[in-house]
Amino acid sequence: MEKSITVVGGDLRIVKLIEMLNEDGYKVYTYALENSEELLNLGAVEMCPTLEEAVSYSKVVVGPVPLSSDRKRLSAPFGRNNVNLDEFMETIKGKYLIAGNISIGDQLEKYDIKYIDLLKREEFSVLNTIATAEGTIQIAMEETQRTVHGSNVLVMGFGRIGKVLAKMLDGIGAKVYCEARKDEDISWIKAYGYNPIHLNNLDENLDKFDIIINTIPFQLLVGERLDLIKKDAVIIDLASNPGGVDRKAARDRDLKVIWALSLPAKVAPLTSAEFIKETLYHVLEEL
Amino acid sequence: MEKSITVVGGDLRIVKLIEMLNEDGYKVYTYALENSEELLNLGAVEMCPTLEEAVSYSKVVVGPVPLSSDRKRLSAPFGRNNVNLDEFMETIKGKYLIAGNISIGDQLEKYDIKYIDLLKREEFSVLNTIATAEGTIQIAMEETQRTVHGSNVLVMGFGRIGKVLAKMLDGIGAKVYCEARKDEDISWIKAYGYNPIHLNNLDENLDKFDIIINTIPFQLLVGERLDLIKKDAVIIDLASNPGGVDRKAARDRDLKVIWALSLPAKVAPLTSAEFIKETLYHVLEEL
Amino acid sequence: MEKSITVVGGDLRIVKLIEMLNEDGYKVYTYALENSEELLNLGAVEMCPTLEEAVSYSKVVVGPVPLSSDRKRLSAPFGRNNVNLDEFMETIKGKYLIAGNISIGDQLEKYDIKYIDLLKREEFSVLNTIATAEGTIQIAMEETQRTVHGSNVLVMGFGRIGKVLAKMLDGIGAKVYCEARKDEDISWIKAYGYNPIHLNNLDENLDKFDIIINTIPFQLLVGERLDLIKKDAVIIDLASNPGGVDRKAARDRDLKVIWALSLPAKVAPLTSAEFIKETLYHVLEEL
Amino acid sequence: MEKSITVVGGDLRIVKLIEMLNEDGYKVYTYALENSEELLNLGAVEMCPTLEEAVSYSKVVVGPVPLSSDRKRLSAPFGRNNVNLDEFMETIKGKYLIAGNISIGDQLEKYDIKYIDLLKREEFSVLNTIATAEGTIQIAMEETQRTVHGSNVLVMGFGRIGKVLAKMLDGIGAKVYCEARKDEDISWIKAYGYNPIHLNNLDENLDKFDIIINTIPFQLLVGERLDLIKKDAVIIDLASNPGGVDRKAARDRDLKVIWALSLPAKVAPLTSAEFIKETLYHVLEEL
Repeated sequence: MEKSITVVGGDLRIVKLIEMLNEDGYKVYTYALENSEELLNLGAVEMCPTLEEAVSYSKVVVGPVPLSSDRKRLSAPFGRNNVNLDEFMETIKGKYLIAGNISIGDQLEKYDIKYIDLLKREEFSVLNTIATAEGTIQIAMEETQRTVHGSNVLVMGFGRIGKVLAKMLDGIGAKVYCEARKDEDISWIKAYGYNPIHLNNLDENLDKFDIIINTIPFQLLVGERLDLIKKDAVIIDLASNPGGVDRKAARDRDLKVIWALSLPAKVAPLTSAEFIKETLYHVLEEL
Repeated sequence: MEKSITVVGGDLRIVKLIEMLNEDGYKVYTYALENSEELLNLGAVEMCPTLEEAVSYSKVVVGPVPLSSDRKRLSAPFGRNNVNLDEFMETIKGKYLIAGNISIGDQLEKYDIKYIDLLKREEFSVLNTIATAEGTIQIAMEETQRTVHGSNVLVMGFGRIGKVLAKMLDGIGAKVYCEARKDEDISWIKAYGYNPIHLNNLDENLDKFDIIINTIPFQLLVGERLDLIKKDAVIIDLASNPGGVDRKAARDRDLKVIWALSLPAKVAPLTSAEFIKETLYHVLEEL
Repeated sequence: MEKSITVVGGDLRIVKLIEMLNEDGYKVYTYALENSEELLNLGAVEMCPTLEEAVSYSKVVVGPVPLSSDRKRLSAPFGRNNVNLDEFMETIKGKYLIAGNISIGDQLEKYDIKYIDLLKREEFSVLNTIATAEGTIQIAMEETQRTVHGSNVLVMGFGRIGKVLAKMLDGIGAKVYCEARKDEDISWIKAYGYNPIHLNNLDENLDKFDIIINTIPFQLLVGERLDLIKKDAVIIDLASNPGGVDRKAARDRDLKVIWALSLPAKVAPLTSAEFIKETLYHVLEEL
Repeated sequence: MEKSITVVGGDLRIVKLIEMLNEDGYKVYTYALENSEELLNLGAVEMCPTLEEAVSYSKVVVGPVPLSSDRKRLSAPFGRNNVNLDEFMETIKGKYLIAGNISIGDQLEKYDIKYIDLLKREEFSVLNTIATAEGTIQIAMEETQRTVHGSNVLVMGFGRIGKVLAKMLDGIGAKVYCEARKDEDISWIKAYGYNPIHLNNLDENLDKFDIIINTIPFQLLVGERLDLIKKDAVIIDLASNPGGVDRKAARDRDLKVIWALSLPAKVAPLTSAEFIKETLYHVLEEL
């Protein structure tokens, strides 16, 4: 018996995902992916002329990660036409939706759509962290005139991203310092062999870093604290809007700040697609 | 103003702790530590003739880690006399008690004793993990005729101990496999670069390990599963009573099982004392 | 007593070197660096109108790394005028020359010029290796759609660059395989914990690599061997002219080959300048 | 066609080697190994009543590692009778001898015995280093009351053992300092990410180390330099006779010195046997 699945919209990661599903024996029906040249050449992928038709072949619909960036239309950079969110929900009534960063849960429930948000799956978030960490290191390499090896690097926050980032930075020879607020995290930082800096002692240490990477969704790098940072340091901010750095104040001080979001899709679409696939299969098993 | 503190009972770690408190400028009053030669030579330590007197000098009393091993008497391997738990509580009425593995919380409350269990402080548990992991590696080195470097090592469970142990084993060149049950943990194992083995696939992999280390407080290594293990493998069980291995079944199969408990006190009393001190200071700040 | 030194020609690394010499209290006289804006603002740097004048202030002349790329003129990307090699030698007669990749030793001796080739100093070569390795990893990150973490990476050759590269790749979580020809190197690869592949077994393993990095100055990746490589693999060739890959044959097979030379100057001019400075000071001590 | 080989004398590693040769299909003839219980049970091993008979079955004779510890008799801890070296040479006239630490090359040549010294094979020395490094770490764990994790550890000498030891120590979380004399080695120490200490700066740094490991066959730890070392430090000396520490002077100062030799045979006879086997096979191929 052939397995089939419907995919609507999405970026390069979703295109790669479709190729992989294809290799694993899935027949894939798509919509809003018409401009992807890679998909045109795949035999077992059927680009449907309408959303209705695409959706009719499977009870599971895979959508974009994130689902929408403006809460009005589906994210569909490869789509020939826009897909209105309301229309989308109307059409997939009663189906399963698997997508990322779904912020319209209430509405989906009204349409009797069961959904799973990939970005809320811990397993996916952890895997995604790998690509984020690696993308951050790539930026650090590109934006500095020194080697990261031997540089003093501060990682602010010791959550998922902080942990993986610290390991990789240490692995290429950086001198890694990790900032945290909780005694428990300070213990972990010691256990992993990095240099711990308690938030209370941040200010007196700030002047030694060549690279500062923020992962905390809270503006800690503001005001006079910015005066403590080396003039030729590079700050990479991974926190989502509004970010962890007062960017205006940083600009006034001529500090170099790079605000880096959505790294997995940018630096490693293929690996990201594999992570989505892996999580998707776990979800399908659970259905 | 001099800082003073009272310490009652405890093992070599507590003795080392007292030396450190001493160096940090504390006047320490002790009881039930009379047979420690190291303390006899320390000027600022006063061994009191009675528990009452020792307790009278400070509102904070530091007790053993663990507090008691039989729920009747205080753990006091260096004490000249036994200290009955009831008598102890009666005497420290109204004070603060800081000790480890305090299982008599209800009774303490009756005596109006406020207490903090060091072993319940996440920061301490994490630090303790370092000594446990290192002690485990020492055992693995001692009990095998091969180098751990290059050996196939299975770590069962990816909690605190599993995480630190895997990092160290990888660091000395072992081929590290980590077993876990949750998809999230499997993701972490990948992120850290070890070989993940889902519990569901444990059996088909068991025959390749030279060293198996269990950290799970649940008997997974039982019955016919034991038949899958290499005859010359070494199993190190870190789980508390009853442990994670059916020891009788293992003995019948001539498997070498080492049940290793309380490693920090045994292999690194000095480092453990430092961890206790660090946590103690955090607690004192919070009082 | 003021220390003074003359610097003639050179790229961004030499500019950074001058800034550092300046900070260390050196008075620096330059020629053929007129177009460097960074130097214009440095008080203690004196840009001399003629080569003769610049050279007159110091018995040690620091030249470009490499000294010349065409064996006719000095490498001087920031110079206003060309400096002819013959003229250069005539002018620095009887002095000490410190530069890189000096291939005209015979002629220098005729002019009674003592010289030291930085690139022949083992200490400098090793430090340079750090920047080369990191630049290679940056390229690998930029040129692939996957994370290097988790990728199968082959490093061909286990000399200086191979050793440092393997360590860093392993450090960010790649699965590292090292190819070597000598039993001794195979032993080292095992000791460091990477996967050894003897040259004799290269062909049967070639199909598993996502990234192949060649450090061997000998064309091993030629002819039908190229057919064994994955179609979407990325090959990074670090060997100098003619390189280790038959580029025409690779192009015919649609393989992606990046020929990456002079990475230290490109990816980490500041760190490279530090390495030059460190070696320069060792040399000055020995004079 | 059956492969056969003769083995005379040797310690537990040679016993394990014989078991492995056996598994690989070799018929093994032995002498001076009569007291090994493990060998008694192996079908395909034939313990010969005389050296003559054992030697008669194969043109290759494997001897002990090291061949002799007193230059008079063969090392044969499992032998029922002593084997005189002269008698041994007389008997294996015209054969190939493969053993370790053969210091009687001149005499062997007189008897027309071709020989290969395993300990002079770079590939074997490197592999042996793994076991030496791991054994050293085991000793460090056993002889200190702290965790090696977090300790300041000095490795003196950055040769084969220094390199592997530094990597493993770093891998379990020690703070690793490496002492060297040559600029080139200092560069390597930086490239690998350890803290370099030039011999010229050793004295001013000595007081910070918890563990000092010497790999240099030269007495650097002598006289007043010993006064600079922490009283509770542990010194592990890996250098052969006379070692790198003035042991009398150290004893006078109450310093703890452990002189650790022949670690591979002691801590990992099985792994060592594998290394011998691997090298033996390379040698056999070359014959």
